[in-house]
Parts: sequence; C-alpha cells; structure tokens
Amino acid sequence: MTDATAPITREQCEEADRNDPLAGLRARFALPEGIVYLDGNSLGALPRDAVARAADVVSREWGADLIGSWNKNHWFALPLRIGEKIGRLIGGGAGECVATDTTSVNVFKAVSAAIRLQQQDAPARRVIVSERENFPTDLYIVEGLMALIDRGYSLRLIDAPEDLDAALDEDVAVVLLTQVNYRTGHLWDMREATDRIHAAGALAVWDLCHSVGAVPVAVADAGADFAVGCTYKYLNGGPGSPAFFWVAERHLDRVETPLTGWWGHDRPFAMTDAYAPAPGGRRFLVGTQPILSMATMEVGLDMHLEVDQEALRRKSLALTTLFIRLVETRLSRHPLTLITPREEAQRGSHVSFRHPEGYAVMKALIANGVIGDYREPEVLRFGVTPMYLGHTDVWDAVETLRRVLDEELWRAPEFQERDAVT
Amino acid sequence: MTDATAPITREQCEEADRNDPLAGLRARFALPEGIVYLDGNSLGALPRDAVARAADVVSREWGADLIGSWNKNHWFALPLRIGEKIGRLIGGGAGECVATDTTSVNVFKAVSAAIRLQQQDAPARRVIVSERENFPTDLYIVEGLMALIDRGYSLRLIDAPEDLDAALDEDVAVVLLTQVNYRTGHLWDMREATDRIHAAGALAVWDLCHSVGAVPVAVADAGADFAVGCTYKYLNGGPGSPAFFWVAERHLDRVETPLTGWWGHDRPFAMTDAYAPAPGGRRFLVGTQPILSMATMEVGLDMHLEVDQEALRRKSLALTTLFIRLVETRLSRHPLTLITPREEAQRGSHVSFRHPEGYAVMKALIANGVIGDYREPEVLRFGVTPMYLGHTDVWDAVETLRRVLDEELWRAPEFQERDAVT
Repeated sequence: MTDATAPITREQCEEADRNDPLAGLRARFALPEGIVYLDGNSLGALPRDAVARAADVVSREWGADLIGSWNKNHWFALPLRIGEKIGRLIGGGAGECVATDTTSVNVFKAVSAAIRLQQQDAPARRVIVSERENFPTDLYIVEGLMALIDRGYSLRLIDAPEDLDAALDEDVAVVLLTQVNYRTGHLWDMREATDRIHAAGALAVWDLCHSVGAVPVAVADAGADFAVGCTYKYLNGGPGSPAFFWVAERHLDRVETPLTGWWGHDRPFAMTDAYAPAPGGRRFLVGTQPILSMATMEVGLDMHLEVDQEALRRKSLALTTLFIRLVETRLSRHPLTLITPREEAQRGSHVSFRHPEGYAVMKALIANGVIGDYREPEVLRFGVTPMYLGHTDVWDAVETLRRVLDEELWRAPEFQERDAVT
Repeated sequence: MTDATAPITREQCEEADRNDPLAGLRARFALPEGIVYLDGNSLGALPRDAVARAADVVSREWGADLIGSWNKNHWFALPLRIGEKIGRLIGGGAGECVATDTTSVNVFKAVSAAIRLQQQDAPARRVIVSERENFPTDLYIVEGLMALIDRGYSLRLIDAPEDLDAALDEDVAVVLLTQVNYRTGHLWDMREATDRIHAAGALAVWDLCHSVGAVPVAVADAGADFAVGCTYKYLNGGPGSPAFFWVAERHLDRVETPLTGWWGHDRPFAMTDAYAPAPGGRRFLVGTQPILSMATMEVGLDMHLEVDQEALRRKSLALTTLFIRLVETRLSRHPLTLITPREEAQRGSHVSFRHPEGYAVMKALIANGVIGDYREPEVLRFGVTPMYLGHTDVWDAVETLRRVLDEELWRAPEFQERDAVT
C-alpha cells in the first residue's frame, strides 16, 4: 500500500493484518462480535483480565479482607504504584507522577501550582494562554481558578496552533495545551512547543488525555513542567477511571498544591492539625481514591507497559493514513471534509471529518455496527486504537460509512433525534 | 438490660438479637466467618448484591455496551441519581445533592462557595471556625484554600464543642464542623449548632462522613448551608466510593463552585468555550466519575433507603451503650478511658477508649478476630454498625478485649511493629 493513488482492496488489508506484529493484542480485549469500535479515544475497550481483577477486588479484597486491605492488598500504595507506571509510560522520572482524581481537578492543581511558582519568580506575569479549541473543561477550570483567586489573571486563547508565538509575551505565566486535540486530532510537538514557551519565560502544562497510550510521550525529554491526563481512553482503564498528575522533578522543592488533602500530607495517619506536604508528586494526592476503579485500571495500563510505544505509533499512523485514503478515494462524492492534519507528525490517533449531517450520519453508522462518535459542530470522529484494531476494521468501517451515505440511511427519523450524551 | 448495674450475660445478648427487627439485614452482607467487624465506620462491609452489580458494570456495561453505556446504562445520570438518593437520606430537597469526587475535594468546594457568598454579603468576615479535633483533611483543605486565595483569611480552631459560642463573632464567615467526630464519636446537635452559627452571621458547612447511615441526618430541617460526606463507611459503598456534596436550595441562585469543570456546565456536550453553571447542585460536578466505584456504591445506598433510620439509630445506641457497660463492668481493672460521650444524644455510632498501649492492643485484637482500628494517640476505636452487628457481636468483642488485656497478648513482638496504615 505504498502507492498513494492505487485503489486499496479488502484483501490487501487482510494481508496487512496478517503481517501485523501487534495483531495478537486484540484477543486480550472483550470486544463484542459484529462491531467495529472506533471510540477507544473516548472509552477504551475492556481488557479480558480486568473482569477477574474487578471481581477479586470486590469479593476478596473488599469483602473478605475488609479494612486490612489497605495494608495487605496495598490499597495505600495504589495511587503511587499506578502513578509510577504511568510516569514511566509518559517518560517521567520516579516519584513525579500519581494516579488520582479527574483530569479537570488535576488541571486545577497544575495551573494553580504553575501560577504560584510564577508568583515567586515573575509576579507580573498574569496571563494564561490556551487554545480556543482546547477541550472545554480545561478552559472552564482556568476560568474558575481565575475567579477564585481574583488577582487580575486573564485567559488568552489562540485560534490555531500557529498563533502560539504571537501570544507569548512578557505577561504570560502559564501555557496550557492539550497534546492531541480532542476534535481535530492535531498533535503538538511537545518538545518544540515547550522550548518556545520556556524561551518566553512561561511554564508549560500539558494535557495528555488524547495522546497517552496512542502517541509516544516524553515529558521529561520535552522539558514539560506539569502534565495531566486520563486513563479511560487509550489506556483502557475503564469508565471514569482515575486520572493522573505529573510534575517535573526540578519543581518539587517548592511546588504547592491548592488541594491540600490528607493523602498529600507527609504523614497522613499522624493526624496532626497542620498541613505538611509529602515529598515528590505524592503531595498532589487529595482524598481517598475509588479503589474498584483504580485497581481495575491497572490491567490496561500493564498491557501498555508490555508494548513498544513506537511500534504502536507506527501502526496507529498506518491505520489513520489508511482511513483518510479510503475515505478520499471511495467516498469522494460525499461532502466529507477532513479536519485532521494530513501531516503524520501532526496527527494523533483519531481521524475526524465534518459532514453537514454529521450527527445523523454517526447515529446511522452506530446502528450499522460502526461505533465512532460525534462532536459539535458537525464532526464525525473515529478513534483508531492500535491496540485492538486492524486494517480490515478500518476498511469495513469506511465501507459502512459509504453505504450509510450512498443509501442515505442517515435520513431515517430515528437518527435525527438527539441523545442526552453524544 | 435496663438495670445499669446488673451483670450482662451472653445469653441476654443472644435474646436481644432474637428480638432485633433489623437482624435480618446481616445476611445481606458478605462478612467473613469468625470475625467481629467493628470497622464499618472506616470501610463498610460488602453487600452481597454488590458483587453481581460490579460484575455487570464491568462485563456488560463497559465490555459489551461500551461508549453507548453513557446513555443506555444511564452513566450520564449516575452522579445525579445517586446524589438524589443521598439527598433524601440526609433530608435534603430535590436537585440539591450530587455524588462526586472525594470528601476533601468537596470540602474545598463547600468552604470556597460559602466564603464567596459571604464576600457578597459580609466581606469583612474573614475567619473560618473549625475544631482542632476535626478530621485533619478538613483543616488541611481550609489551609490550602486560604493560601491559594491569599486575602487575609484565617482559621480559628476551638478545642472543645462547648467553645463554639466564644469563637463566634462578627469576623466569622464560615463554620466547618463534622457532625460525628472521627476519634471521640461526639455528635453535634446539627440544628442547634446551625442556629447559633446563623445567629452570629456565619454559614454552616457540615461534614457528615461519620454520621450518614448511622445517625439520622436532616440537613434542610437543621438549616444547614452546605454538607459533604463519604459513602464508604456506614453507607457500605465500597473502598473509596465517591463522596457527596449538598447545598441548600436557598443558595442556588448565586452559589459558585471554584472547580468549574465540564460536568458542572449547563450543557457539557455543547463544547462551548465559556463556562455557564448548571442549575441546582449539578454545578458542583467537575470531571468524569469512576463508574465502577460509583455504580457499585448504589447497592449499599439502596439498602439504607429501605431501612428506617430511626430504628437504625435506636439499635446503634443500644449497641454502643452495651459496649460501654461491658467494658466498664468486665474490664474495670484495665487502664481503658472512655473518650466517647456517655450522653446518648451526643454520641455517634462508634465507641473509643484510650489505652497506653492502644496500638499493640488493637493489633492483638485484630489477630484474635476482632477488627476495630487505632487512631493517634492511643485510641482504640470500635465502629458499631447497626446494619450488620448484633448484641452478641459486642459481647464477643469485649470478651476478646478482656482476654487480650488479662493475658497481655498485646505484648507479643509482632504487635509492636507499625503498619504503613493503621
């Protein structure tokens, strides 16, 4: 499939799958028969081993060992142990990463901590830069933080990645960027952008929700200051599994969290009445974590640690490139507009197209066994999860999309009606 | 057992259990054989039905229905539906309560929201009152919040409940109290204390961690302003199951959360770039919740909604009174000092004694099948969970304590060594 103009056949896709060294991973996921699941960038599939893990946590650890599990079954260490594993996956150092809370709460901690470092170093800097197209909660959280501290901070939003330089001036304290955009799939070069941010005197907070587990991440190598992200997308942690928080080692001697809970205390069970931060990233823990979700999450994470992230990236790019080529060669008569970068170095692991009837088209696709998702406005989003998808899945998905569009299946009344969540 | 001086026999306890109308509830919990579990105030026991619920959430909802579960299996509504149930249990109105995050994070939201209401009404009030003996995380969180907003707030700690009035002056903005003290078991009269707080012009934030599910709570009747609490103690929600947040209806037109995440947005999936708070308590949601923990938690909560909370309270008091009488009549030669109020109206659902060798005594007790816990300093803490304990359990526990003390079993070297978490 090296000739970009030649038609691609399903047989070629089958052949590519037979030669895929990662193809064996799929059998370790409990994917239903008869569907193509292209929404692993929203909720990753269930690793088969997670079923037994969850049952064991409930029946043995909770039911039989009860309170003793905090020591015996290492619940106490879970946010740290899992945090270390995530830290390794994103290229951080020891003691810098914890698994905890939600991405939104962790964005709050990270931006707040970054602001306070700047209050010591460059107190006149009171602008936070982000992208208008960032995932909305990141922007909302910054708004809420600014209103809370009420000290003249403002949010400066850039309209496109190429506008970053123009936004970086001597007022900027912090830049909050999402490595892979949730809608377009645009991928920042983290190292290059962080260099520019640092050159302008600002700190860099990276949201890794749509990159971790699908794109190799190297926070320390990139010189990032803080990173947060979720584990229920490409890491297959389970619905709403706890998020993570990473801080660069160089900040640990003076970085402060705004959410000074007992789990971030140096000695949480000494029950002293004054707060004293724990060493390392542990100070960014707050309250007691949801153990069923946390423990079950580790199964998907462990699979990722077994897999070469560069090989996963190569497969991801092969599949997203295939997706784009198939749509553009086989569906060219339909009003589908690619909004994902064609340049591989700028692409995460999902592919998005605008279509004027995007919402109905996606509902029709789902009804026909191809599960992607819809994002406002008009965007069909297809997550291409290299852990459990192959070339044939992509071929079949595009073929179903062709049928939905050619036969105008999306016009059926049941596909016009809006669900609560899309 | 009405004569407070007569010796109590195990036979009398067995008789009392036979007459206990709530005795049938115990069979619905998966408690191991051969132990007496007196730590339900730290981690509630496993409801048998929670095993199937957790398995169903993992295999069917996550594994088979995948992303469609947000609508099909009502994940979207879970924090609201469960919040409504908790709201009913604590005597709140519709739309005022959500299940979300951790108690620590919710204390941050509640105190911050209360401070901001006062900034509008009485901006000169910059003192937050709490108890030195409050659960430490509540105090740590307030410290962190004050440092973050950095506007001259201070924390005024009272040393004993009777010192509240003296601490209430025209500087006080917010009073943060825990209804049942985690160590002593002291129970505040919420209505009476809230009246005094309001009379002094302050707002009342109540932490219900150690009361909800064991003591009837009536937040609206008491006139409380905010309440938070956890679900993994007397509500048997599972380890680290999400906490809850309640706000009085009268504040809803102008109350603000500091953690403005997308789940608290009026239209979370519209993906607009400006924050607009949802109506009702829903604005206190932040990020995506841990669904395995959240869904499993509902099983224990539903059991509580079936049970008459007043009957549960009567049984709780019968058991804690029995515990105290047995210790004081049968173990009087040992240096055990009751730190829990003798007055029933001031007592939650656990009983605590100081003992100079408290840590080793508790480890020896646990090794002999009686699971309570230890809290600094020197405190043996016994949670008396009326949902699944009976009079005979209390008799057996005290008898084991007698043996541990009479035979000095606690002197064994293995009981001197400290665990990571106690």
